[in-house]
Amino acid sequence: MPTTSQYDAQGRLRHLLTLQDMPRDTLTALLDRAQHFAEGHDARHVLAGTAICTLFFEPSTRTRLSFQRAAQRLGADVLAFDASTSSTTKGETALDTLKNIEAMGVRGFVIRHKDDGAVAELAAAANPGTALLNAGDGRSAHPTQGLLDMLTLRQAKGADFSTLKIAIIGDIKHSRVARSDLHALRVLGATHIRACGPASLLPDDGTLDGCHVTHDFDEALDGADVVMMLRLQRERMEQGLVSSLEDYHRDYGLSVQRLKRATADAVVMHPGPMNRGVEIDDAVADGSQSLILKQVNNGVAARMAVLEALLG
Amino acid sequence: MPTTSQYDAQGRLRHLLTLQDMPRDTLTALLDRAQHFAEGHDARHVLAGTAICTLFFEPSTRTRLSFQRAAQRLGADVLAFDASTSSTTKGETALDTLKNIEAMGVRGFVIRHKDDGAVAELAAAANPGTALLNAGDGRSAHPTQGLLDMLTLRQAKGADFSTLKIAIIGDIKHSRVARSDLHALRVLGATHIRACGPASLLPDDGTLDGCHVTHDFDEALDGADVVMMLRLQRERMEQGLVSSLEDYHRDYGLSVQRLKRATADAVVMHPGPMNRGVEIDDAVADGSQSLILKQVNNGVAARMAVLEALLG
Amino acid sequence: MPTTSQYDAQGRLRHLLTLQDMPRDTLTALLDRAQHFAEGHDARHVLAGTAICTLFFEPSTRTRLSFQRAAQRLGADVLAFDASTSSTTKGETALDTLKNIEAMGVRGFVIRHKDDGAVAELAAAANPGTALLNAGDGRSAHPTQGLLDMLTLRQAKGADFSTLKIAIIGDIKHSRVARSDLHALRVLGATHIRACGPASLLPDDGTLDGCHVTHDFDEALDGADVVMMLRLQRERMEQGLVSSLEDYHRDYGLSVQRLKRATADAVVMHPGPMNRGVEIDDAVADGSQSLILKQVNNGVAARMAVLEALLG
Repeated sequence: MPTTSQYDAQGRLRHLLTLQDMPRDTLTALLDRAQHFAEGHDARHVLAGTAICTLFFEPSTRTRLSFQRAAQRLGADVLAFDASTSSTTKGETALDTLKNIEAMGVRGFVIRHKDDGAVAELAAAANPGTALLNAGDGRSAHPTQGLLDMLTLRQAKGADFSTLKIAIIGDIKHSRVARSDLHALRVLGATHIRACGPASLLPDDGTLDGCHVTHDFDEALDGADVVMMLRLQRERMEQGLVSSLEDYHRDYGLSVQRLKRATADAVVMHPGPMNRGVEIDDAVADGSQSLILKQVNNGVAARMAVLEALLG
Repeated sequence: MPTTSQYDAQGRLRHLLTLQDMPRDTLTALLDRAQHFAEGHDARHVLAGTAICTLFFEPSTRTRLSFQRAAQRLGADVLAFDASTSSTTKGETALDTLKNIEAMGVRGFVIRHKDDGAVAELAAAANPGTALLNAGDGRSAHPTQGLLDMLTLRQAKGADFSTLKIAIIGDIKHSRVARSDLHALRVLGATHIRACGPASLLPDDGTLDGCHVTHDFDEALDGADVVMMLRLQRERMEQGLVSSLEDYHRDYGLSVQRLKRATADAVVMHPGPMNRGVEIDDAVADGSQSLILKQVNNGVAARMAVLEALLG
Repeated sequence: MPTTSQYDAQGRLRHLLTLQDMPRDTLTALLDRAQHFAEGHDARHVLAGTAICTLFFEPSTRTRLSFQRAAQRLGADVLAFDASTSSTTKGETALDTLKNIEAMGVRGFVIRHKDDGAVAELAAAANPGTALLNAGDGRSAHPTQGLLDMLTLRQAKGADFSTLKIAIIGDIKHSRVARSDLHALRVLGATHIRACGPASLLPDDGTLDGCHVTHDFDEALDGADVVMMLRLQRERMEQGLVSSLEDYHRDYGLSVQRLKRATADAVVMHPGPMNRGVEIDDAVADGSQSLILKQVNNGVAARMAVLEALLG
């Protein structure tokens, strides 16, 4: 992975590639601005006349729509390029695609790619005035998801994360969401983080350094203030990493009963889309402790804050 | 099908699910406003800043474009979600998809779904400030098509439908267009409605109550003022409901010769897309009595009227 | 091919179908205006409220995005219809599709089609107020590519083309880009045009009248001021027109070494997308003599000029 910094010489954010080791002030400023937008304020002048392209080498309709809505509320012009289905780019490199659309006068790129570090690699080749937003690269990072999760958590539990007991449950190994959440939680001072899942789905690459790691869901939930559930990709079964959806649900599915182990005012989060009946039960997903739709709502605001910071 | 009312406690339209039993004043007010928009007036302030999503679980490019153009002329921001091809929503319910996009701040949804009642079911779960527009559900209803057909008819024949002889020809059984047209015609006082097609393509579920039903195309056309042709889906042959396209054309295809049975100033309508040479001949489709492109033109205006009524 | 003129009775451009035999004043005026837009000027009032549809019967994401960006900078509303994937138009003719979208109030159409003359055929059936832009039809023409290439050439080499030695290299036979470049070069007074490629890829239909034709790449490059490379479609191998990519690269691939045969300040152009390592080497494509990204940049400006001329 190239070592392109996402900051300029003055320490200002130039791209958003990761939340890892982001200066706390920078992260907090983004959250403050996101909170402003979450309160319903539009700012159509901020990016009026500015072109933004959603450049998805891996499809994701929901993330794309969230970015598109954010761009609209800032007055930007949006172009969409679904590189996962485009036949015209056969044989063309991701870099040539980027440079071409950049040459059309597009200043901001929202990029998803299946490879770790792919967005950073593209950022290294972008023109000085161009900003790239990582909308998910491989297992590495999904920084706007991390931001929206922190915004949601701060709204629910206040800005002091130091005493919160936070449980992250499921397929952490393959999850860029989990990684960006962990990056952000550390920057914001969280210290009681529990990571839980079957051994086959927990990473051993340093991702969980400083976390309490367990395979026992009940232990992870015990007295937790925040329960962050992760989506179980069905391909994990085909890969032999999970024996069956039924077994997974029995061991790591969040039911109303199980949630009672957490604190009475514990909140439940999930990045979506949910596999209802697998990692989460309907009664929890739609229950009073669920923040899942609030997360989606905050996603637009968080993305507005990033777009404004990079391009405004 | 849930019994969600499309009206609020004050009787105002909250969603548009069907034209069935719509109060005549409500329907007429929509047509009056549609006429205003059909005269070329835009109203970009009406929905400025409002987000509308076209959420199509069954593809239909033309209906989607018509709604998109309507939304543009009202100044709305449009998001498009082709749920029929999205791989990201695999395993996600239509309801979760709706609730997620709603959580992004989208206030209006234009929804097409293959199942009868699917849009009403989603409407029952929408937030108070959210409006759903049925852009076609199963065989049940396609209310904006009904509206645009009534607008077109009113422009051609005046507002008094009581004396008009109206023939509806073809696959009424599987047609949401025919049902919405019948709903609207009844509300507006039409009494001379003839329904015609092969027995295999006529419904026996009450849809045709009060209509004169015949399998004889010549009889249906005799002295008719309005001839509404329906599209013959090719799958009806595979299902054995029609023996061949040639037979269908011989029995129920509208030719110049056949049209002479109607009044000299009879008008011909078709919801499109046409199977030229099957249910309608080129010379009729493109002839002076055809209102087919006028229908398409009025479609944008009718959809503007509905969007304004629900979201303005 | 119908003989629909692209000019009205007063000689003003009504459609843009081809650059062939375009009056030099008309072409120069488009280039002058494109130059204005290339300098960064937007003109959001010019097409405010005007609807433009990109109607692609053959997919091309990059050309579509370029037109979309051009339309945005002129303030137009854009509708996109990918007719190559739409299932709703099965069995519908291109003409019915056009007439329907036209009936929705769309005034401008950007059309790509695989058949020679298809856009001219549609133009013959368009309403008086409707303008069609050929975004590529068969092997015939791709006039906005011709315009952007002329704009790029004029910026690099000045407006007098009469003394320029211009080499066009590769699959000219199947190239609408080459044809539109040749049309425009002749109108603008270029006289030293060399056409080079294997015999199987050179046309014998009059396209190259007046050009110096050779199969020897070195001869074509010798002292050239401008080198226009063409994309080699991989299907040419399957068709047996080219023996292998390796052979093609050896005979007609532009390397740094080979480029030295041209003048020291020769410029290199390519319409994209490139097959790197086949018709062009990385070091040339990304080198200081390459105008390839400048072409893309000028594409938006050239398309703005055409949209303004036809619809403004």
